[in-house]
Amino acid sequence: MTFDARVARTRERMGELGVDVLLLSVGPDLPYLTGYEAMPLERLTMLVLPRDGDARLVVPRLEAPRVVPRPDLFEIVPWDETDDPIALVARLVGPQSIHAAIGDHTWARFVLDLQRAVPRATFDRASVVLAPIRMVKDAGEIDALQAAADAVDEIAVELRSRPFVGRTELDVHRELVERMLELGHERSNFAIVAAGEHAASPHHEPSAERRIAGGDIVLCDFGGTMRGYCSDITRMFHAGDPPTEVRDAYDVLLEAQEAGVRAATVGTPCAEVDAAARRVIEKAGLGEFFMHRVGHGIGQEAHEDPYMVAGNVLPLVAGHAFSVEPGIYLQGRFGMRLEDIVVATDQGPRRLNDAPRDLALVG
Amino acid sequence: MTFDARVARTRERMGELGVDVLLLSVGPDLPYLTGYEAMPLERLTMLVLPRDGDARLVVPRLEAPRVVPRPDLFEIVPWDETDDPIALVARLVGPQSIHAAIGDHTWARFVLDLQRAVPRATFDRASVVLAPIRMVKDAGEIDALQAAADAVDEIAVELRSRPFVGRTELDVHRELVERMLELGHERSNFAIVAAGEHAASPHHEPSAERRIAGGDIVLCDFGGTMRGYCSDITRMFHAGDPPTEVRDAYDVLLEAQEAGVRAATVGTPCAEVDAAARRVIEKAGLGEFFMHRVGHGIGQEAHEDPYMVAGNVLPLVAGHAFSVEPGIYLQGRFGMRLEDIVVATDQGPRRLNDAPRDLALVG
Repeated sequence: MTFDARVARTRERMGELGVDVLLLSVGPDLPYLTGYEAMPLERLTMLVLPRDGDARLVVPRLEAPRVVPRPDLFEIVPWDETDDPIALVARLVGPQSIHAAIGDHTWARFVLDLQRAVPRATFDRASVVLAPIRMVKDAGEIDALQAAADAVDEIAVELRSRPFVGRTELDVHRELVERMLELGHERSNFAIVAAGEHAASPHHEPSAERRIAGGDIVLCDFGGTMRGYCSDITRMFHAGDPPTEVRDAYDVLLEAQEAGVRAATVGTPCAEVDAAARRVIEKAGLGEFFMHRVGHGIGQEAHEDPYMVAGNVLPLVAGHAFSVEPGIYLQGRFGMRLEDIVVATDQGPRRLNDAPRDLALVG
Repeated sequence: MTFDARVARTRERMGELGVDVLLLSVGPDLPYLTGYEAMPLERLTMLVLPRDGDARLVVPRLEAPRVVPRPDLFEIVPWDETDDPIALVARLVGPQSIHAAIGDHTWARFVLDLQRAVPRATFDRASVVLAPIRMVKDAGEIDALQAAADAVDEIAVELRSRPFVGRTELDVHRELVERMLELGHERSNFAIVAAGEHAASPHHEPSAERRIAGGDIVLCDFGGTMRGYCSDITRMFHAGDPPTEVRDAYDVLLEAQEAGVRAATVGTPCAEVDAAARRVIEKAGLGEFFMHRVGHGIGQEAHEDPYMVAGNVLPLVAGHAFSVEPGIYLQGRFGMRLEDIVVATDQGPRRLNDAPRDLALVG
């Protein structure tokens, strides 16, 4: 979809929802509509997009050269170091009692300042307008997600023949970050490396002290951004032969992940993808050790709509892209998770990751 | 300063300002007070710190194992995947008409949800309370800034004997990111590499297409976070002999930066640091080509208070840490900037960076 088409669809939804103006700053909505990503700094960048009328991009003058001009889409309004960008946005919004939708990630300080500067406006989050549009990926976006998935797949395969024992979690973490950059990611978003008992903490912070030892299970969950779209994969490694308990739990995990993916057909509620994987783990008597949802949408953001979680009745449509990542975590002992990115298509669920899913034995 | 002492000072200021409760989420305020940094994701983490009474850290259950417990400072309140964390925070805040201060970087969606959940509360930004405290660095913080500065100094020195010609900006960018990680930074925050005419754009995005050629000036401005504190340095390189015009402008830049640093004595208003550097550039007839402020505070954030900018009458005190980075930018032709981190001390301004400041000739 072109930027023009995206803006047109956005304006259509603004009409349906009675939203008069969209205010977009840091975060993925602005690049989605214009190709320009605001710097996450204290100098305000804000697209003021009225439902009717011309859009304007308020931007610090020293960042204006970064903007690729699109005069058909927006006019650039640069501000100088001693100007007040809030007053500038307030003038563009106007004094009427209007309904504004502001980017979900906009910094609180700018939200509060704007609320004071346009006291008659009411504010909603911009995802009310944009999430249903952004959720459904077009062919170009799926290609970008596939390219990012291919890169992390390559790293996941490499890891199978890399040494683990004796290295710290942080050392493996750094290798993952470097490999993502080398393979074309513009940034790494996270690279969890969790050994043994640490793998029981789903969002463990890699440690400079914890060395991987023989007998450790190692969880590697990593992803970044490539050409504006995110990768995210989890694979499991074991230093030496795993004990029966770990092997058995891993068999359950594999089956649960497969069940989650298989359930992800067009028309199925998101909650059912979660439930399908969860049932397998519960049936094995391990339900209490799987305490998070099974997945999250992915696109320009590592986590975005739609979420595969109990209570989410939204039915999948072709173009939804999301993770399926069940886990089993035994506090103080070990943990495991297995994750692929999946796209719902009219031909059934399509996995973007294809690195081997077995518990890889490493030295 | 210990976390206890920081919390005590924060509560004291809350009393002075009539702030009843502090609400801290993503961003540096939370780790400053507790050692814990919230993940910048859609699951809400929020410290609820009343002026009087016990503090509570509302945190997703799967992230709770990342929190180092500090029962003297806060109680951990984990929430499950299908709980509503906004309702949880609202219950802790209570229904009274109170004055809340919310972390400056908190996502707009959480601010708007909270405003609805506690409609009688009024909201300010948390920096009203915390900026004056965080601005003045203690000895441990200055040590951390020095260690981060030493690491990027080492890279700046290495660059002087590295090849430039024939490499793309992106390639040099990646080397900078990798070296920061190798030298102990936990993350790279930015690494601007701008060749020739690109150097005239102060926040240029490194390009995969633009190759550095003989005769190019190259601006390298890079920094990251190490042990929680930021580095930030700019050095200039030239492929082959610079023409007289570039050489002359660089002499002006050097003198301007030196004047800015020299002005940064305790008691001097921040604006005067900016003015001191600017006067040198204006006197040389180049004033119109220096369109940004001369510096920003630095600490846990790459940019934070105090800002060295016209209009900022705040006098420097011992412990203020900030950049001094004048620039000269000739659109479409070339640009240059020179940057050190400086700490105001009772013995005068102390530069944390000491890599050579001359225009380095490279091949």
